[in-house]
Amino acid sequence: MRDHFEIRDGDVAGRIGELTVPRAGVTVETPALLPVINPNIVTVSPARLESEFGAQILITNSYIIHKNDDLHEEALDVGLHEMLDFDGAIMTDSGSFQLAEYGDITVTTREILQFQYDIGTDIGTPVDIPTPPDVPREQAERELAVTEEALQDAEDVDTGEMLVNAPVQGSTYPDLREEAGRAAYETDLDVFPIGAVVPLMNSYRYDDMVDVVAGAKRGLGRDAPIHLFGAGHPMMFALAVAMGCDLFDSAAYALYARDGRYLTVRGTEHLEDLDYLPCSCPICTSHSPDELRAADETEQERLLAEHNLHVSFEELHRVKQAIRSGNLLELVEERARSHPAMLDGYRALLEHTDQLEREDPVSKGSFFYLSEESAFRPEVRRHHDRLARLDATGTVLLTQGGTPKGDQFDATWRVVPPFGPFPRALSETYPLTAEVPDRTDRAAYEMAAEGVARLAAENPETAFVLAHDGWPESALERVPDDVTTESIHSVSPENGEETV
Amino acid sequence: MRDHFEIRDGDVAGRIGELTVPRAGVTVETPALLPVINPNIVTVSPARLESEFGAQILITNSYIIHKNDDLHEEALDVGLHEMLDFDGAIMTDSGSFQLAEYGDITVTTREILQFQYDIGTDIGTPVDIPTPPDVPREQAERELAVTEEALQDAEDVDTGEMLVNAPVQGSTYPDLREEAGRAAYETDLDVFPIGAVVPLMNSYRYDDMVDVVAGAKRGLGRDAPIHLFGAGHPMMFALAVAMGCDLFDSAAYALYARDGRYLTVRGTEHLEDLDYLPCSCPICTSHSPDELRAADETEQERLLAEHNLHVSFEELHRVKQAIRSGNLLELVEERARSHPAMLDGYRALLEHTDQLEREDPVSKGSFFYLSEESAFRPEVRRHHDRLARLDATGTVLLTQGGTPKGDQFDATWRVVPPFGPFPRALSETYPLTAEVPDRTDRAAYEMAAEGVARLAAENPETAFVLAHDGWPESALERVPDDVTTESIHSVSPENGEETV
Repeated sequence: MRDHFEIRDGDVAGRIGELTVPRAGVTVETPALLPVINPNIVTVSPARLESEFGAQILITNSYIIHKNDDLHEEALDVGLHEMLDFDGAIMTDSGSFQLAEYGDITVTTREILQFQYDIGTDIGTPVDIPTPPDVPREQAERELAVTEEALQDAEDVDTGEMLVNAPVQGSTYPDLREEAGRAAYETDLDVFPIGAVVPLMNSYRYDDMVDVVAGAKRGLGRDAPIHLFGAGHPMMFALAVAMGCDLFDSAAYALYARDGRYLTVRGTEHLEDLDYLPCSCPICTSHSPDELRAADETEQERLLAEHNLHVSFEELHRVKQAIRSGNLLELVEERARSHPAMLDGYRALLEHTDQLEREDPVSKGSFFYLSEESAFRPEVRRHHDRLARLDATGTVLLTQGGTPKGDQFDATWRVVPPFGPFPRALSETYPLTAEVPDRTDRAAYEMAAEGVARLAAENPETAFVLAHDGWPESALERVPDDVTTESIHSVSPENGEETV
Repeated sequence: MRDHFEIRDGDVAGRIGELTVPRAGVTVETPALLPVINPNIVTVSPARLESEFGAQILITNSYIIHKNDDLHEEALDVGLHEMLDFDGAIMTDSGSFQLAEYGDITVTTREILQFQYDIGTDIGTPVDIPTPPDVPREQAERELAVTEEALQDAEDVDTGEMLVNAPVQGSTYPDLREEAGRAAYETDLDVFPIGAVVPLMNSYRYDDMVDVVAGAKRGLGRDAPIHLFGAGHPMMFALAVAMGCDLFDSAAYALYARDGRYLTVRGTEHLEDLDYLPCSCPICTSHSPDELRAADETEQERLLAEHNLHVSFEELHRVKQAIRSGNLLELVEERARSHPAMLDGYRALLEHTDQLEREDPVSKGSFFYLSEESAFRPEVRRHHDRLARLDATGTVLLTQGGTPKGDQFDATWRVVPPFGPFPRALSETYPLTAEVPDRTDRAAYEMAAEGVARLAAENPETAFVLAHDGWPESALERVPDDVTTESIHSVSPENGEETV
């Protein structure tokens, strides 16, 4: 049990949590976004990040500070908090990124952790190896062993109240990620960054990102606070939170701004291409696109960075509200339509339904059926599992609306795609209170048929009659042969049809 | 040709237009949102609507003014523009809503149009009958005849430079809506409100709304500026614009605010349920939910109304940018995931693909495949129609990636779901530059198979070989028997496979 992280509320595998950061004397509410501060180039001051954007935590790079004589001295002298003018929590990276980029750095885990401690870091980081995607398995294993040694070294450093990151690597091998997650969790370290996912996100491999996170999550305990390292695009916050990520860091807001790029939850726009500003933030309601374009370089960079921060924090609020309302997957559904690669990400997420189902709350707001993907949500899987535990004896009518004329049944159950059958007593329970479209799709019918099949398999002695509203062949062929099927359209309303 | 309305850009059946309003001396860019001003209760002043929200046009009710002695006198005395303190265009309603609500009003079309003219209205409205949904056809026809008489009366009134609305009624009978649209278009009136859709929207019948608009559009000329009367929820702007609506009016921003409701593009929230504000507007970045809840009634109403306006205008900007970028349907895809009823609306829209295809631009940004619905987009339909005009002779390989070993072909075409086959020369043309997910779905495969079938049907002398990457049975059964099919997985890379 990690007592510095408490989970307050959850939806899918996402959660609202409280990360207590003792050295900073603050509690950070998660999911949280850590703006990246480059100590050499401050686009939006940390004080403003705190007061205007509500940032409770930020991240900067201790290796850059360590290597720069002036910053090094100042940081040791006055401490990071005073140097950056920030009262919230400060996480520092270790130089691992530089190691990955340039192949060599001049500090060890022990040295850099000591330095982080000395400058007043609240959450420090050892020197791990961010193994890129798609490397040979042998390399991924070898480098993971080095990362795990770094975690051992980190455990040996006396870091007082400073929390310490335990990065999880393993390239694109989900089983290595799982093993790495388990090893990290077994240390006494505190926060768990999933590393080296930036190349996946940069190449729009959101499905592979999902598989990597799912692997790491299998190894980590549920109470582990998880940082998706380098993830800063608001488009994927909902998806990543639904997988169980708690912390994000964004250099994107500033880097993209420098490049004239404007973030939205639907992707990235170039300022030069915008005729309208699809945003209500204080920057966008007080400037036209032409005014932004006409601003001088520094001013434009600041304005775009502020817009980018606003849209990022806004999405984080939306994600948190969705967790509170129990409709996070509905938000993921929407974000899945921002790019085909995000759709791949959502489809990949649904391949982990069993894993998600274990954390997903049993009851929440209202299930919205929003696409054929909705048929594969964990709630549907859970309902089918529940069917296995329900008694149905004698002759049972499963109906979408009518009662076939003249027949007598011991019980009448409702049938609603995509869930399939359920006793009427469950009608008012989640997820059977679902809102579903009138124009039902094939996936919903087929999943309902799977539910019928599941129920029939568990009750071999029971005679089932399925009254359906005209299911497609692909659904009917999933209904077992010993279930009698008839179309409701053939039931005459004058002769005993009943609205359920 | 209606010379007061010019179309500047278009996507699907949506367009960016310019509505010249001569009496106001202004040009209104469409799609436009007309905030509704209740002359008795002004929540946000028209001057602020103009300066802070960019409203170019608003709507108020001339019947309310007519009936109230003080307002009546003041409006005649100083004119509407001075009375409301608004320099943009002012549309006025006629009392039809009151007629529908209370069964009787005390003015005729001639009287109220004259009054509207006298008080300085820029766009006036006759007294039509807003026939509700689902009435008997006879009632819909009878009332439509009365509405059409009102339009004749309106033509007879000398209204100078004032533009006049020609409402389109017909209840939920698409053919009556079409007839009504044709009759309205044949008058010399100027703007075309599609009336009595509010009950459909209030009961989330977005699919019926789509059918009603599609009916009216078939009757109206393409150059007719169309007002979706009473539509003010930002959730459905993208869908309605995609159908070809140009003007929206919102009383929702104020009515909902009075009721503690907070609009989002994903639906409506109750302020009491919000733990976070999923928005970056000036109100939401300067208040917490608790602060909004703590505000006194009038202040809370104003703050919520301003948020509601911000989110509405923001969505309108997003819709316009989507038209410019040629990705309006991608935005509709996303909004379709806000509620199952919106999904029904989108599915209904795609049932009008033929109608949409006639207005949809041939070339635009980049086609994103975002759901099984994407397979039914007008661009796919158009590509299949184009296949009928392409020559394919001899032996032609249609391939998703490889070339079967040892075979010789006269031509090799690419195959991409959902489009199906196309000659390589078209690879760089819209929509074949599409971004598609790696996890292809059944609908995409099936639609690609339809493309193959279409091509084969048009070229009965040609021998086609289809090399596919493992299509599901439901797709393969749509491929004609005389097309040879083989799975790419059986093609050995060492023996002639080629990446296309």
